[in-house]
Formats: sequence, structure tokens, C-alpha cells
Amino acid sequence: MRNLKLTLEYDGSKFFGFQRQPDRSTIHEELEKALSKLFNRKMKIAAAAGRTDAGVHAAGQVVNFKMRSSRTLSQIQKGLNALLPHSVAVKKAEEVPEDFHARYSAKSKTYEYRIWNHPVRSPLQNARAYHVPEKLDLGGMRCAVKFLRGRHDFRSFCASGSHAMQDGRRRGTIRTIKRFDMRRKGALIRFLIEADGFLYHMVRNIVGTLLEVGRQKLEADEVRGILLARDRRRAGPTAPASALTLISVRY
Amino acid sequence: MRNLKLTLEYDGSKFFGFQRQPDRSTIHEELEKALSKLFNRKMKIAAAAGRTDAGVHAAGQVVNFKMRSSRTLSQIQKGLNALLPHSVAVKKAEEVPEDFHARYSAKSKTYEYRIWNHPVRSPLQNARAYHVPEKLDLGGMRCAVKFLRGRHDFRSFCASGSHAMQDGRRRGTIRTIKRFDMRRKGALIRFLIEADGFLYHMVRNIVGTLLEVGRQKLEADEVRGILLARDRRRAGPTAPASALTLISVRY
Repeated sequence: MRNLKLTLEYDGSKFFGFQRQPDRSTIHEELEKALSKLFNRKMKIAAAAGRTDAGVHAAGQVVNFKMRSSRTLSQIQKGLNALLPHSVAVKKAEEVPEDFHARYSAKSKTYEYRIWNHPVRSPLQNARAYHVPEKLDLGGMRCAVKFLRGRHDFRSFCASGSHAMQDGRRRGTIRTIKRFDMRRKGALIRFLIEADGFLYHMVRNIVGTLLEVGRQKLEADEVRGILLARDRRRAGPTAPASALTLISVRY
Repeated sequence: MRNLKLTLEYDGSKFFGFQRQPDRSTIHEELEKALSKLFNRKMKIAAAAGRTDAGVHAAGQVVNFKMRSSRTLSQIQKGLNALLPHSVAVKKAEEVPEDFHARYSAKSKTYEYRIWNHPVRSPLQNARAYHVPEKLDLGGMRCAVKFLRGRHDFRSFCASGSHAMQDGRRRGTIRTIKRFDMRRKGALIRFLIEADGFLYHMVRNIVGTLLEVGRQKLEADEVRGILLARDRRRAGPTAPASALTLISVRY
């Protein structure tokens, strides 16, 4: 069996998320449909690096699947791109060792969250940025970001009711944020977060909390206390999905 | 009567163009609906700088309208933004002299055209860039751009059957391209064209012709001949609308 790794880009606004769902168009479903058509037999994806929610975009999602066909990588990539909807594209197809698993082999993932911080909304940014009209205390937000970098128990930022243990590595709700940058260019604020793993809704809950600091409803210092509390109710609301993009996965 | 100038941003994919059309949502219609609701009487737009086609976006479209109300500019801007669909926004509202006309007072307009030049399409660029998978001769395109700068009769680039005289200034099909830049960043090519006026489909026909040079179906030199021929059939095809944005209008 050959093990193939695909790197995908998609516009999340066109799908009900990555994961298969009955009667709804998902990236997983479209991909298995295209693979099955290409190989003329029922094909399954073995794993995906991140199960992006409805509305979440990807510039570098990674999946892998097993197959017996002798087609070249270029034939597979071109074939899939011809069969997939225009809102998904296979950016790269690579052959990987048999034990490569798109999810468990990942060393880290990087997400981007965009905020359009201007009194007036931007229709041209709308699709991929969250409009926050209020003036934000950016200094406070930058300070709060510092508390979040590094290895912590992120339970306070994990959607309540979700099963953090499901990542198969039994590390509970402890994760390491290796990089957390906040960049501003005019009215556009971009957060780049790289971590060894993410809990369910973790980026969106972190951004929702940072925005509470930006609106001065929370002090930057309090973010440290929220981390220690390990209680979802202490953190801010979940920021919208449409401004989130899975940028890349490192193996 | 007060004369008001509005600067608009909109996502052209959500509308059937700027111009009013029966039974179709256009920016013109949405704007007059919002104005009429705001002022509680039937309101008309006096003029718009550019009548963008279906699918064309704007970062800085300009319109003006006359009114008697004593509301402040900030009240008008906020009121309109609350009433307009999310895919349009009033970025600025200004009071202008009585003889200001959004179209005839314009000294120049700047359009941007985006091309995604990569073998694989980009779903995240799709909405606002034209996917051209073939390798392009960028040197030839840059050279052809030079022939188009300056004052010329652009009849060869004007949609056949359109009435170029309709701009009210009786200059026929002669226009001056004051600035024409071609910028490349990775796979994204951006054309920025500033002119004292544009003929119908002029930017899209110019880009379609430059792409013929890029694909080496035309030599850069031939673009000079196409200009002189004053014949639409000599130029390349019309590039798609969705990659075009009206960036700004200078007065």
C-alpha cells in the first residue's frame, strides 16, 4: 500500500466544516467523493491534521490516505483538482512512509485569526475577518498574549463538554503554544498561533478572551488567573469561525 | 440643498453590478433604499464615479446625492451602514460644493486587476483573482504595459456596441493612462491602472490582451499595432469581472 499526503487549501464559507456529516457538504465528503471517482472504487481518508469547524478556512490542511494505484503524484493532484469543487484545491501531493498519520505525526499546527478593527466594516475583508468596531487596548492584548505562550493547561479555553482526551495521546488539556504573534497593519490585526495541538475552540476562545482585554473588560493580568482556574466559564466568548484559517502543519 | 459625497466599499460578488436593474439587487438600488429609509422620503443618487459591472468590487467607489436634512455627516454614515447589506459600507461621508458631480468632477480613477498565476487554483484568492495556470512571459507583459501608458485612442479596448461618447465630455475614445503598474508577489500579479476615464470593459480588455502576450500568442510590440488599429476585434478577450476592483477616485 502507498501512503499519500495531500496539502489542501479551502474556502470554509462554502462547507459545513471538514468532518463528514449526514446530508451536508463537507470537505471530507467532497474529498472522498473525488478520490473514489478518480480511483474508481470506494476510497477513505485515513486522517486529517485538524478537523476545522464550519466556516473555518485552510491554507494548509493536511490529510493522508492509503491506496494501491500506481498513478504518479502529479496525475493524482491534477485528477483531484479537476474533480473537486472550486472552493477546495490540492496544493501538493507527496508520498510518505507507511506510518505517517496526518494527525498523530503532526509536531505543530499554525492557525491565523483576523480582526478588522475599524469603526466601519470592510465588505472586502468581511469573508475572512471578524469586525470589531470598538477601539482596542492593543498594549493590554499584547501583554495578555505573553501569559498564554508556552506550556499550560488550556482547559479554560476548551469548549465545555468536548473531550480533550480524544487526541489519542492522553495529554489531557495541556498544550504548548510555541509561537503567538500579534501583527497589526492598518485596521487589520492578525494573530498567528503555533502549538503542538489545539483543544476544541481553543483559538477562538483565546481570541474572544483577548478581545475582552482589548475592550478593557478584563485586565491583561487576569488572563493568567483564567489559565490557572481551568474553568471555561472564566474565559471570554468564542470568536466567530469565519475569521480563522488553518495555515500549516509541521511534521 | 446640501450636496453629499459618499465613499463606498463593496463586495461585487453579492450584486448584479452598480447600476439599477429591474428585479435585481444592485448597489445603486440598495443605496437608494437605505437613503430613502433614513430620510423617510424618496431619495435619488445624483451620480456615481464608475458604473461597475456585475461582479466588480469597489474599495473606493464615490457617489453624491442632494438633500435638505440637517443631520450630521456622522449620523448619515452610521445610519446608512446600519441599513445597508453587510456587503456594502459607507467608508466616508463628506459635504461638497453644490457643483460637485461624482462622475464629471473626477480627475482620475484607479482600478486594480488581480491574477493568480499558479498551476493550482487558490480557493482563498478565488473570489477576487483570475486563475491563470499557464506560465506567463512577464517580461513581455511589462513591455506591452509601456505601450499602453499615456494618451491614446483606446477604441480597440472598448466593448463593441458601447457608446463611448456617453461620458458627457465628447472626448470619444481617447483617454490618458496616467499610471499603469504591474506588481508581482509570489503567484499573485496585480495591475494598478489610473486613467482620466475608462471606456466600457477597458481594463478587462487590456488585461485580456496582456494575457495573450503573457501566453506568447501576441508579441509585446503588436499591442502598439492593436492600439493604432482602433478595432475591438484586434485585441484579446475580456478578462473576468470578479478580479476587478475600483480602488479610488481622485477629484
